[in-house]
Order: sequence, then structure tokens, then C-alpha cells
Amino acid sequence: MTSTAVAPEATTVETVPSFVQGEWWTPSADASAGVPVRDASTGEVLATVNTDGLDLAGVVNYGRTVGQRELGKLTFHQRALKLKELAQYLNGRREEFYTSSFKTGATKIDSMVDIDGGIGVLFTFGSKGRRELPNSQVVVDGPMEILSKDGSFAGEHIYTRIPGVAAQINAFNFPVWGMLEKFAPAFLAGVPTIVKPATPTGYVAAVVVKAIVESGILPEGSLQLISGSARTLLDHLDYRDLLAFTGSASTANSLKSHVNVVQGGVRFTSETDSLNAAILGPDAVPGTPEFDAFIKSVVTEMTVKAGQKCTSIRRTIVPQTLVSDVVSAIGARVDERVVVGDPRAEGVTMGALASLEQLADVRAAVQSMLDAGGELAYGTLDSPSVTSLDGTVGVVEGGAFMSPVVLSWADVDAEAVHSLEAFGPVSSVIGYADLDDAVRLAARGGGSLVASVCTNDPAVARELVTGIAAHHGRVLMLNREDARSSTGHGSPVPHLVHGGPGRAGGGEELGGIRSVMHHMQRTAIQGSPNMLTAVTGVWHTGADRNFTVETEGTHPFRKSLATLRIGDAVRSELRQVTLDDITAFANSTGDTFYAHTNQEAAEANPFFPGIVAHGYLLLSWAAGLFVEPAPGPVLANYGLENLRFITPVAAGDSIRVTLTAKKITPRETDEYGEVAWDAVLTNQNDEIVATYDVLTLVEK
Amino acid sequence: MTSTAVAPEATTVETVPSFVQGEWWTPSADASAGVPVRDASTGEVLATVNTDGLDLAGVVNYGRTVGQRELGKLTFHQRALKLKELAQYLNGRREEFYTSSFKTGATKIDSMVDIDGGIGVLFTFGSKGRRELPNSQVVVDGPMEILSKDGSFAGEHIYTRIPGVAAQINAFNFPVWGMLEKFAPAFLAGVPTIVKPATPTGYVAAVVVKAIVESGILPEGSLQLISGSARTLLDHLDYRDLLAFTGSASTANSLKSHVNVVQGGVRFTSETDSLNAAILGPDAVPGTPEFDAFIKSVVTEMTVKAGQKCTSIRRTIVPQTLVSDVVSAIGARVDERVVVGDPRAEGVTMGALASLEQLADVRAAVQSMLDAGGELAYGTLDSPSVTSLDGTVGVVEGGAFMSPVVLSWADVDAEAVHSLEAFGPVSSVIGYADLDDAVRLAARGGGSLVASVCTNDPAVARELVTGIAAHHGRVLMLNREDARSSTGHGSPVPHLVHGGPGRAGGGEELGGIRSVMHHMQRTAIQGSPNMLTAVTGVWHTGADRNFTVETEGTHPFRKSLATLRIGDAVRSELRQVTLDDITAFANSTGDTFYAHTNQEAAEANPFFPGIVAHGYLLLSWAAGLFVEPAPGPVLANYGLENLRFITPVAAGDSIRVTLTAKKITPRETDEYGEVAWDAVLTNQNDEIVATYDVLTLVEK
Repeated sequence: MTSTAVAPEATTVETVPSFVQGEWWTPSADASAGVPVRDASTGEVLATVNTDGLDLAGVVNYGRTVGQRELGKLTFHQRALKLKELAQYLNGRREEFYTSSFKTGATKIDSMVDIDGGIGVLFTFGSKGRRELPNSQVVVDGPMEILSKDGSFAGEHIYTRIPGVAAQINAFNFPVWGMLEKFAPAFLAGVPTIVKPATPTGYVAAVVVKAIVESGILPEGSLQLISGSARTLLDHLDYRDLLAFTGSASTANSLKSHVNVVQGGVRFTSETDSLNAAILGPDAVPGTPEFDAFIKSVVTEMTVKAGQKCTSIRRTIVPQTLVSDVVSAIGARVDERVVVGDPRAEGVTMGALASLEQLADVRAAVQSMLDAGGELAYGTLDSPSVTSLDGTVGVVEGGAFMSPVVLSWADVDAEAVHSLEAFGPVSSVIGYADLDDAVRLAARGGGSLVASVCTNDPAVARELVTGIAAHHGRVLMLNREDARSSTGHGSPVPHLVHGGPGRAGGGEELGGIRSVMHHMQRTAIQGSPNMLTAVTGVWHTGADRNFTVETEGTHPFRKSLATLRIGDAVRSELRQVTLDDITAFANSTGDTFYAHTNQEAAEANPFFPGIVAHGYLLLSWAAGLFVEPAPGPVLANYGLENLRFITPVAAGDSIRVTLTAKKITPRETDEYGEVAWDAVLTNQNDEIVATYDVLTLVEK
Repeated sequence: MTSTAVAPEATTVETVPSFVQGEWWTPSADASAGVPVRDASTGEVLATVNTDGLDLAGVVNYGRTVGQRELGKLTFHQRALKLKELAQYLNGRREEFYTSSFKTGATKIDSMVDIDGGIGVLFTFGSKGRRELPNSQVVVDGPMEILSKDGSFAGEHIYTRIPGVAAQINAFNFPVWGMLEKFAPAFLAGVPTIVKPATPTGYVAAVVVKAIVESGILPEGSLQLISGSARTLLDHLDYRDLLAFTGSASTANSLKSHVNVVQGGVRFTSETDSLNAAILGPDAVPGTPEFDAFIKSVVTEMTVKAGQKCTSIRRTIVPQTLVSDVVSAIGARVDERVVVGDPRAEGVTMGALASLEQLADVRAAVQSMLDAGGELAYGTLDSPSVTSLDGTVGVVEGGAFMSPVVLSWADVDAEAVHSLEAFGPVSSVIGYADLDDAVRLAARGGGSLVASVCTNDPAVARELVTGIAAHHGRVLMLNREDARSSTGHGSPVPHLVHGGPGRAGGGEELGGIRSVMHHMQRTAIQGSPNMLTAVTGVWHTGADRNFTVETEGTHPFRKSLATLRIGDAVRSELRQVTLDDITAFANSTGDTFYAHTNQEAAEANPFFPGIVAHGYLLLSWAAGLFVEPAPGPVLANYGLENLRFITPVAAGDSIRVTLTAKKITPRETDEYGEVAWDAVLTNQNDEIVATYDVLTLVEK
């Protein structure tokens, strides 16, 4: 870290700038007019924030026009590649971000969760966007539904991006991850972001946005930053826009009551703090790997980020007989592992809370819990002795430090333990009678982001998880198999949804492509197969085919992506299947299943008329019927999807195959792409024998 | 119809009963104390509604306890079967329902939309529930995501039912369809319904609920009916519950602002009326089949149900040059086809509005539009001459009759045409300059349930549909191919979502299994593959296998569903592939692709080391390696999913297959069920050659 990062007497204090309408902006007023932001460990004023005079209507309009226009020029794959490129760029500038992050009271490990974690989200979406979305702008959701007897009318669902902005209001505890985990899916969907970080730590987000702007990677209008208050932002949003909020339940409620949410139809999601539980199974007694994993997890969640995580374990729910064992074990591990102090000081493992205001709030919450019957089983509410940057140990004035605290409860049904949240290094231990009771107690939280279930008994896991799942956004099962490899109770991963019902805010973020869909509108479309094909760019059964051998003198396998079109097709001649063919196939493959070898037994089978050809024989012959043997643009058949055998084929029957280019996905970074071909096998009576999709790689 | 259905002097008026906590309930007060409900065509008082003294807290608690408990005993397939059985039962009692329905002003065709349409929803969900959901209680959403390098930690998503009730507040226009389309997905999800129909037509819903109760098909607590006001119902709901509302935007807004929605986390969805558009493409000039289909659709939507449909076409958006042609054609078709009158009278094609209050509202809305610049291009606001039950024609006092009305607009951007809704037989015609302008005008509706696009030009369809999709819940494309087979602009179908953003309420209903998921909570679960297997009942890669030949002396194909267990597996010996095998396969199948026949060309391919075995050869051999030839419980291999070829197999390499029982789905009504087997082909170096799922039918 550099010396200026910790200079106690910074000479000039500046206003944290906003980045709006493609430019950096600060208010015309002097920096001293703004709200001061302080170093969490020293109390030093680092900067001010002030948005007086910022044109929020202009910000929203710029996103809706310039941002939508520029993002609309890119496909999902092109956007995903930009996320990957951005992740690589930011990865190279992490040291700058750590330097800023230390000032928030975060340790190096805390900072890595925030910064590396945020960059990791970009990598994940950069990868998933190309693997799981089409290289276009419309996502088809689910199969076509035939809606008329003759097949001329059908329906299906598509997703298209919402036509507005994604306004994102973030919490103070993860200024970088919080920004990037919301930005990545919005960007991938093609929706411009307006990010408003929390005042106490927004300067870290601003440093990252500065790097993003300098990278020059993102299209104009993709990202705007508001550093400071944006109280009236919601006044400018409507049903075209999305507002994603992370923070306190009270602020969430006030936003959710806004006329533009209630009447205006703004898509509103929120993630708020919750009373997350960890449940210890009855089998996980002291001495088991599960007991150790449980204690380790509880202590980690209490102390990482000084317990200022919306996912921290607030309620430790254990068998009644194990309450005292658990309390002792937590205390012992805290004593052994936790050193509180300035996160920049050597040996410190738990930093300060984000501000003195946060410290006062947490102490008040703990006091309320004590008043409601909680007992202090470990720790103190007094100012702890902490390690300063110079290595001295003692009480520090102006530093927002707190001791880890464990509460125990004689009355496990006390309302306070299930509803009061101390947003710091605090957890309560309560005892349950049996599994039903454990489920009941977990549900008392009124909806949580995450719960852990710690057991090595599959039946216990099943009962607890299915019992509590509907009250939770995520459930982590810890046992000896994953105790070392688990990413932990407190860590949302970009692949899985983050959010939870009820008190947790009722929202959903992340979850891979699921979060991209939150930025898109699902629309049912109805029409003829030709029209469904036109809108989606994917060929639909019943739409016109272009038999290119007949119309262009060219087999579709001889067309590269440059000339291949959706609907290009080839139809083979009929080939007759004889009993000798079936027998020879049985002998060469070893597949002597009675339906292919024994007429009497085959006839007794409810689905077969007698001996029938192997399904795999039909598939293999179909390949022989549609293949173009000489080298050409089709490089490989890498897979097959949705194969269904419909009508059995007996000796004497004939089959033909019709192959139609269904979906074309050029790759951005390779000289080839994927082509999915609709394959239909029919018999001499034009009955459908089998349907499937053949997946091929084809040169550009 | 019976004579009592139209008796002008009913001697006793009764209170429409509620069905709560498993019993029929009416208030202790005299029926005359209730709110009167009248016949829409005659004004006769049919009944009263009154819920004074109804214990709403008890209703909610009964659903959460008894309803949840009883529905929790059934799997998705068992619930789906009950829906089918109920549909068949109600189908047999339709005449009773029609008799009631006529009193609401509905014609026979209107009544069929409501009653047959509602029963059709039950049939669709009865079928989809068994075809598209597992025969269990947990739905797995998407693939497993590996979250640790060693594969010991992974995650995925599950859906479990919400732990409360589905409260459903319905609109007056479709008392039966509105009830059944919300009930069916809730029931299939396992969530008890509390239905509250609209006062003016709730007596029809009560007649159907009476039949449902008499059928004895549904488990206790699945369905409760509140006939009359339920103003305080929301006071008793929380995050465990769902409230689905259909009706006016103002009521929706008031419900959405309720503290239990904003702070309590009640899952709230609404469908409200919207300013739905129909757009005529520039190619669809008079004389084309598209023009005719467009005019027919506009007139149908104006007059079916007397235009009292939330999906009716309110804005007819056509090329500027065609405005007068369209207005004339609509008028001509109304003149030719529409006969207003008592729906029970012969020849009548359009009935009354639901009540005199509705009639006054619609006239007032039209007057406001005239004041705002609209011009009366067809029809009148005077009381029309109508056909009475006795065949006389003239103005009827007390009947809520109205003439179809078409408005034209000099200023197509007048706010009134895009925001004022006349909920009756009323539509406005406005002209657009070009396709961008048409998209812009459609979007002025601020979010709608449905729009039609009428064109035979695929490029026009693509531009209009992708342009307006994000503002709509459904888009219908009409052209000559589907004009006759289309289910129509105004008809939601159970397969596709019904709802829309913004003004349309921001909700989603129907859409097949999508609507079942709206009654379930999506939860991310994390753990070892064994624990994911335990919770979901589906075998996960990395979980333990039971090689039954070794442990039980039995090939898993010799086990029926009674003894087969998830994880039962078989592993074959290695079988070596020779160049002769590959050549013979190429010759017998005809698949002489160069990668299997020409060493030099194969080497030049970027993916192959030289000549490689056909993927279909490997699949066919795998079947030979895992097969049990003699007759046994495995009846057929009916398909294959998710095949991917990973590592090519050259001459000299060997392959083996490992097959593991992954998912078992016994059928409720057959003597067999589906078993999906995880198949992995590996080579002599244990590299993965291919992965796929084999789908089989296995005897119980």
C-alpha cells in the first residue's frame, strides 16, 4: 500500500465525482459543502459526496436513449466478450482497489471477497453469456406449443430486453462486488446501468468506475455512476425500468411504496438483511467433522467483514442438548483465531465496522436483545482493545471496533432473536427439540437469504432442506464431503440465485442467466410457424424449408455459415430395413435385446409389433442418409438433443431423413460456429419414426 | 334454459353462500341486509351478497394448515390427475352453469368462453402436470453447477411450494374462467386457494364451486370461496402467501400499497385492463386476406362479451393512408353481424354490459375521449334499440345495453387515446407514418396485455414484434396462414402467459408450468453430490453408485420400479475399436464421412487425430455393452437426451459404459414408468468419451 493511502492529514478533501452522460461530474459547490466520508479505522475525513445540481432526469434519459441504442448494437455473445475483457483489465488494477478498500475497515481477505469476487462475477457472466445464450438478441423460452389441429397456429415465449434502465442502489458493505454483480447481468441483457453506491464506501466504487471508463471497453451509455444522494431518482423511472436495491428493510419499504413502483410499474427488487440460520443436525455431535465444520462456519460468518454481511449467521439453531457445547466451541475458536484491529496492521483478522454510526446501531441492537431475554454468552459491548497500524494494542478513539458477541436464549421463541438484527459480529445460539422444531424455528425468521444445514445424514438433510427451502433463497448443506471445498454459508456465487422471500426482500439476483432474464420481458408470441421463425431467427417445425439440392444444386452441408440460412434443408431417399440388417446390427454391436432378436418375445412387448430395428441402427442409417462424405464446412457432429422414438420400424419398412438448419450460432472468437439441425425420420407411410436435433460445428 | 332462470318475479332472494373451512356459510343476518345483485338484461334482483361476520383469519389459517397438509400428501402427478377428473366432472354439468351465466348479460358464445374455457384450463394443467413435472414434490430447475475443483461441492436450484395460501381476487367479466385459470396452477403447485369473485357475477362462481364440492374430488382445504366483500383479507396474509388480483388498476394499486405487500412480503401479482393495440402492416391493404382478418378481429374484440375484456383491442393502429378504409370496414361489418339484445333472445350476438354502473362508466369514458379530440366515427352514445327476450325490438329500461362505438383521432398523440379505457364495445382508430411510428404508438399504452400484428411480410413482423414485445405480455401475429386457425387476439390460452408490464399490472398468469412455478419458491441448494441427490431424489454426477451386479447379483435392468433405486448402476468391460470396425460401420450405415474413412483428410480436421469411430458406432456399442437381452422389466428405450461427444475414439482405443439410474417417474395410470439413466462412455485411460441420458420405460 502507498503512504498516501493512510496519510492522517490529507491536505485537500475532494468531492467523489459522478460519471453521468458520458462525463465526469462534480457539483459547482466547494467540496466542504458535501457530506464527509471517513476512514473506518482512523476517523480521518477522506472525501465528501454531494450531488446538488445533478440532472437525474437527464441521467435516466441518457441511459434510455444513448445506452439502449449502443447496447442494442451488440448480441449477447458480443456483450459477454466485453465482460470478459473488462474482467481481465480490472484484474490487472486490483492493487489500486485494495488500497481504497482498506480505508473502509476491510481486511485484505474482506477486500478480496469484494474486489476479486466482483471481478469473478464478470468472468462468470462473460463465460455463461456465450455458453448459455444465443448469439443474437432474442431468447426463446421453452418449446413451441401447437395451438391448432392443422399446426398452422402455434405459440411460444420470447425474452427481449426491457426498454429502459437498470437503476442499482447498493449497500455499503461490498462497494465493488455489489456494483459488479448487478451490472454484469444488466449489461449482458443489453440494459444500461445507473449505479448509486452507499455514501460511506462509494469512493471505492468510484475508483473502480474510473478504471472501467479508462479501459474504454464498454459502449457509450452502458454505465453511469451517481456518487452521493439520489433521493429523487425513482421519480424519473417507470415500467420500462428496473430498480434493484440492496440495503435496509426500511429503505426498501419506502422505495417499494413509491408511486412509480405501485402505480408506475417500475420493476422493483430488493435484497435486505435477514436473520439467517445455521442448523446443526442431531448426528453432528462434538467430535464429528460436521460439528467442527459448523463451528468454523459460524465463527467465519461472525467475523468476516466484522459480521457486516447480509448473509451472516444470526441464529445458530442446535439440538437443545448441544447448546453449551456449541457456545463453548465458538468462544474457543474466536479466542484462538480472531484479532481485532486496523485492517492494515499485521496479524489483524477482523477490522472495524464501516462507521461509528454503524457501531452505535449494532450495540443498540444487542442491548435490545439483552433486554428481551438474551444472555451474553461470549464477548462484551465495551470498546475492545485493538491492534493499531503501528502495532500498539489498546482502545482506539474514533475507530468503529467491536468485540465478537454470542448470545444465548432461555426462551428460544423470544420475538427478539427472530426479528432483531445486529449488523455486526453477533450471533445467537438457540436449542431445538426435534427436526420439526428446527424447521419451525428457522421459519420464524420470516424469510431469509440463506441457511446452513450441517449433517451427514441424507434423511436429515432431506427433511430439513425441503422443510425450510420455501423460506430461503439459498440453503447450504455442510458435511464431511464438502466442508473443505464449500465456498461457505456467507458467499453468494454468481451461478446461483441470491435473494430470499419475506424479510430478505423478496428479490432474486445472480443465478447465472436467470439474472439476465430479470432484465428482460417475457412475452408470449403466437402465429404461424413461418412467422415464429421470422421473429426468433430459429426454424420452427411447420415453417417453409428450402431444399437446397433442388433449388441451388448444393447440399446444405456444403454451405458455410456465410451462406447457410435457417430453413436450408435436405431430404434423403427411402432406405429399406431388412431382418438381415437388424440381425447383423445386433451381432456387430452386441445389442441383442429381445425386441431385435426374438420374434415371439418382441410380440409380447406392449410397444412392438414384433422384431423391430434398433433405434441406434436408425440413427446411424440416418447419418448415412444425410451425410456429405467429402471434406467441407461441416467439421463435426458434437452431440444430439431431444431424441424421441415415435413409431417402431419393422423388417420391410423403409426410412428417410429430413434435415433442416434450425439454429445458427456463429462464435465470436473462433473460425466456426454451432449449427443445430432439425432431424425427422419418417417411414414409407410418412409416419414419424423419430425426431431429434443434430448438433454440428460448421466453418464460418 | 329453465323457466326459473328468467322468472321476472322471484319470490325469495337468497344470500350467495361462501364455502369456508370445509363448510357452506351464510351470514346470520337476513338476506335483505346484503348487497343486491341484478340480472344484467332485466334489472331483476337475483340474490344478495354479504360477508358480515365471516372469520377471514380463520379462512387463511385453515388454508395454511388443513389445505397445506392435505395437498402435501399428493405428488404433482396425483394433483394433475385430480384436475383432469374435475374437468371431466364439470364438463357434465355445463348446462347448469350456462343458465346462471346468461343472467350476467353473456351470450351463449360468451358463456362458452367463460365456462368451457375454464374447464379447458383444468384439462390443460391436468395434462401438462403429468407430462412436464416430476411425479414428486420438488422441481429441479436447471443443471447442477460444479463449484469446487474436485467436484465435491456443487449447487443447483429447486422449487418447493410456498408455505401459505393463494388468495385470488377475480374480475366480474369471467367468473368461471377467472376462477379456474388461477385455481389450476395453485392446486398443481400444492397451494390451497381462497377465491373471491367479483360481486356482480360471483353467483356464477358459487354455482361452479357447489358442483366442485359435490364432486368430492378435491382434498380438504384445497378451495375456499368468499362470496362478497373481503376487504380485510390482505390483513391476514404474509410472505408465505400469494395474492393474485384481476380487476381495475386503482384497486390493484391500493392492494399493492398495503403494508403486508410492501413490508410483509406478500407475493402480489395483478392483471389489470390495458390499452391493447392491433397494428395493421403496410402490406395489408384492402383486398388482402390480412386486411380482412384484421377487420374481423377488431369487430370480434369490440363485441364479444360486449367489449368487457381486459384483452379487447382499444387502439387500432393502421397506416395513415388506410384510416378511412379501416373505419368504413369496421362499421360495415358491425352493421352486418352485430345484433344487440338479451343474450337469451334468438339472433342476438352481443349482450348487455354487466350492470348499469358499468354502462355509465363506459359512456363517461367515451365522452371524455370525445372531449379530448376523439370523433365518433361509428355508433352512438344514446340507448340503442335492442332485441328483448320476447323478440320485440326497442329501447329497454333497466338493461345495460350499448351500441358499438368507433372513434377516430386527428391527433394520434392525444393522451386520451393512449390512457383512457372505455371497458365496453369501444375502439379507436389511429394512423401511423412508418413502422417506427407504429412501435412508438403501441408503446404509448404504457404496458399492455396483448397486441396483434397483422402482416404477411416476415420482415415487417420481425420489426414490429421485436419492437413492441417488451411492452406486452402477448403478441399475436395474424396472416393468411393462421387467420382461420388462430384462437384470437382476445383469448389467453393456458399454454402461454397472460399478463403484461406497466399498466397491464406487471403480472404473469398461465403459461403452462410457468404459472405453477409462480406458486413455488426457487431456492439455490449447495452441497455434495450425495446431499443434492438426497434432497432432490435425482441422482447427481459424483454421488455414490450402487453396482448391483456386484452388490446384489442383479443387473439393474432386471429390477422393476418396486426395487430399482436411484444410484443403481452397471459398469461394462472395455471393448476395443478397430479400424475394421469403423470401416464396416461406415459401409453398413452409409456414413462414409471423411473423418471415418480418409486418414489424411481426418488429420486435417481441427478436432480429430486421424480416422475416428462414428459417434453413432459408440452409442450403438454402448447399448450392446449395457443391455440385458432377455425379457425383463425394461420395456423400451424411447429416447435420449443431452448427448455430447467429448473425446474422439481412434482405432485401437477401447470404450466402456457406466449406466446409473438417475430419475424414476412412475406413472399414475399405467403399469410402468419412465427411468432416465445417466450414461458415461470412457476410454481405456478413463477419459470421458461421451455423456448422455438414456430414457427407458420400466414396469412397476
